[in-house]
Amino acid sequence: MDYNKSAYELGSKRSIIREIFEYSKIRANEIGADKVFDFSLGNPSVEPPKEVTDTLIELLKTQSPTALHGYTSAQGDFSCRDKIAKNLNDRFNLCLSADNIYMTCGAAASLSISLKALVNDGDECIVFAPFFTEYRVFVNNAGAKLVVSEPEDKTFQVNIEDFEKKINKNTKAVIINSPNNPSGVVYTEETIVKLTNVLKKKSKEFGRPIYLISDEPYRELIFSGEKFPFIMNYYDDSIVCYSFSKSLSLPGERIGYIAVNPNMNCSKEIYLAVCGAGRSLGYVCAPSLFQRVVANNLDAKVNLGAYKENRDLIYNGLTEMGYECVKPDGAFYLFVKALEDDAYKFFERAKEYELLVVPCDDFGVKGYVRIAYCVDKKRIENSLPSFKKLIDSYKK
Amino acid sequence: MDYNKSAYELGSKRSIIREIFEYSKIRANEIGADKVFDFSLGNPSVEPPKEVTDTLIELLKTQSPTALHGYTSAQGDFSCRDKIAKNLNDRFNLCLSADNIYMTCGAAASLSISLKALVNDGDECIVFAPFFTEYRVFVNNAGAKLVVSEPEDKTFQVNIEDFEKKINKNTKAVIINSPNNPSGVVYTEETIVKLTNVLKKKSKEFGRPIYLISDEPYRELIFSGEKFPFIMNYYDDSIVCYSFSKSLSLPGERIGYIAVNPNMNCSKEIYLAVCGAGRSLGYVCAPSLFQRVVANNLDAKVNLGAYKENRDLIYNGLTEMGYECVKPDGAFYLFVKALEDDAYKFFERAKEYELLVVPCDDFGVKGYVRIAYCVDKKRIENSLPSFKKLIDSYKK
Repeated sequence: MDYNKSAYELGSKRSIIREIFEYSKIRANEIGADKVFDFSLGNPSVEPPKEVTDTLIELLKTQSPTALHGYTSAQGDFSCRDKIAKNLNDRFNLCLSADNIYMTCGAAASLSISLKALVNDGDECIVFAPFFTEYRVFVNNAGAKLVVSEPEDKTFQVNIEDFEKKINKNTKAVIINSPNNPSGVVYTEETIVKLTNVLKKKSKEFGRPIYLISDEPYRELIFSGEKFPFIMNYYDDSIVCYSFSKSLSLPGERIGYIAVNPNMNCSKEIYLAVCGAGRSLGYVCAPSLFQRVVANNLDAKVNLGAYKENRDLIYNGLTEMGYECVKPDGAFYLFVKALEDDAYKFFERAKEYELLVVPCDDFGVKGYVRIAYCVDKKRIENSLPSFKKLIDSYKK
Repeated sequence: MDYNKSAYELGSKRSIIREIFEYSKIRANEIGADKVFDFSLGNPSVEPPKEVTDTLIELLKTQSPTALHGYTSAQGDFSCRDKIAKNLNDRFNLCLSADNIYMTCGAAASLSISLKALVNDGDECIVFAPFFTEYRVFVNNAGAKLVVSEPEDKTFQVNIEDFEKKINKNTKAVIINSPNNPSGVVYTEETIVKLTNVLKKKSKEFGRPIYLISDEPYRELIFSGEKFPFIMNYYDDSIVCYSFSKSLSLPGERIGYIAVNPNMNCSKEIYLAVCGAGRSLGYVCAPSLFQRVVANNLDAKVNLGAYKENRDLIYNGLTEMGYECVKPDGAFYLFVKALEDDAYKFFERAKEYELLVVPCDDFGVKGYVRIAYCVDKKRIENSLPSFKKLIDSYKK
């Protein structure tokens, strides 16, 4: 093979979500889209806030198009970064400036750039199961080894004992993702305090920081009303990776940011490393029109109530039938225990009832499936009788 | 240093263009923007075609925002890829399909993804001086070594003899860039035929293909009216990297594509390697709204006449004074021989006359400066007396 083998393998790798997506389209043609209950994709179903479209049209009608669509500086338009910094300061009592913010092409870019800036060949990076499958790709691309820490049974909070065991001299970074994809679990303040205490202890022991990367594209999708424990208030050596994909329902527009904690060791140098990492991966600047759009809509939010209604409908519906799952306080996923050991077999059986769910072995937890409830409410309502038939079929 | 050293070095590296940009702002405050003749940046000055803004507003007013801003598939919206393939087929007599097109976040992404898909650690990649400075970054990030081939004197076409000498067993890929940044030179059909003949001979000798990557963001900016020799018609093992940044004046929106030649060895596998490389670098999909915008405006073009007027004005003006430069047939750059051996010293001297030009040592050719004439015509007109004073100062 003359071309790059690992790129080819990654590109041709079987993706269960993609396969379900293709199957779903074919099946919808066969029996009608309303009879296929596809819960596989994390594509937001709730419309972007009206302000987003209004801002877009206003900008297009009033601003010079060469300025609007021109390059911004590599780290992003100053005014946009400044507004984001101030907004975060107001909400979470921080002291960020524009020079701590680096605009990105979405959460995946935020994460791959942050990892490339922080880790070196041979380093280890700890993630907590269940974890978003692409973490493995980005960690490996940065030259590091992915180490998986097991979760607490049932709650899917961090298992502190296991976490501490997984840390060693090679541990350079730790990624958390709360609200979590695929479990919908939000880490409690207690979890964050315990986790960062371990990191502080170990950093001291090693005489160098272990970096904490908080991947939080679902930060604005929390139903409990509880205060979100913003990581920079608990741990200095931290970087926040954000995306507006879910909070403004703009996943295709690829717009997000990296916030580098101004209190971290070598904060300025790490910000420069972020700039360099972005440059080396081929990022020139984040999409310019949408930098302006998000800067003008930092307090706008999608209709969270719609997701909460969906959450209640499917969580209550399924648990009443006897399904076992943790109540998700955020994001738009339900993490359901399969009714047999092999999640793939359960997935196949669910398919017979036209229920399309994602087996979660690749997310680092066996025996579970993910239900993405970011769909039309009707789909959930209509699917419930099928979920009932599915569980009954296991009782025979 | 605990974080990544090479990312830090890249991020903190002195960038002459950035420095000039900062200086230009300060100087404009001191003496007035109209008195500073800044020719440093390749940011298009000609407005996007009106159709672009019209399409944007039309889409925003008529389409479902969840569909418009939602994820497309990783390789891009099918209809967008299909239209691009058909448009290229019509114009250049090819047989591309949607499955040969991969939408990207602009030219830098196209190039970094292509390199990552094609090369392996230890491979060599040949570029032709003068070359866009970021090639070095992307080639190194893909794990390969950059090898520079010297140009023909004065014409800055490919020096075939030197090129052939630079090819060896480790040569995996070759990048061409025509119309060229920074010289403005368009490779003649004769150059392309000679260059691809060498590649065919060497590929045969080695029993494996040497890949040819054509980076052509300036393809639509050609003034001569001559037919552009599209690389796929001359060489099978080729990939085209494109961006709409210049043809539609949308550099900040980060929208472009990779076209994989359907006739290349393992074309399907290489397309998959492109998909995998994009995934590993953190690209999820190209910005979705602008995928639709470009798909609907494939025949739209910025006002090329404005750039041609600028080209004629500055080229004629400078050569009449005695400056030495090749007449650029494309892009929006003039490559001017410095009036002393050291281009940096010449740059400093030009600065005394408020002329901001870019010394081109980093572009692989010493003793030259780049003048980006993608500026308001007035700036060129007003700068000419200063260029005259500058050359006169060397005659004293």
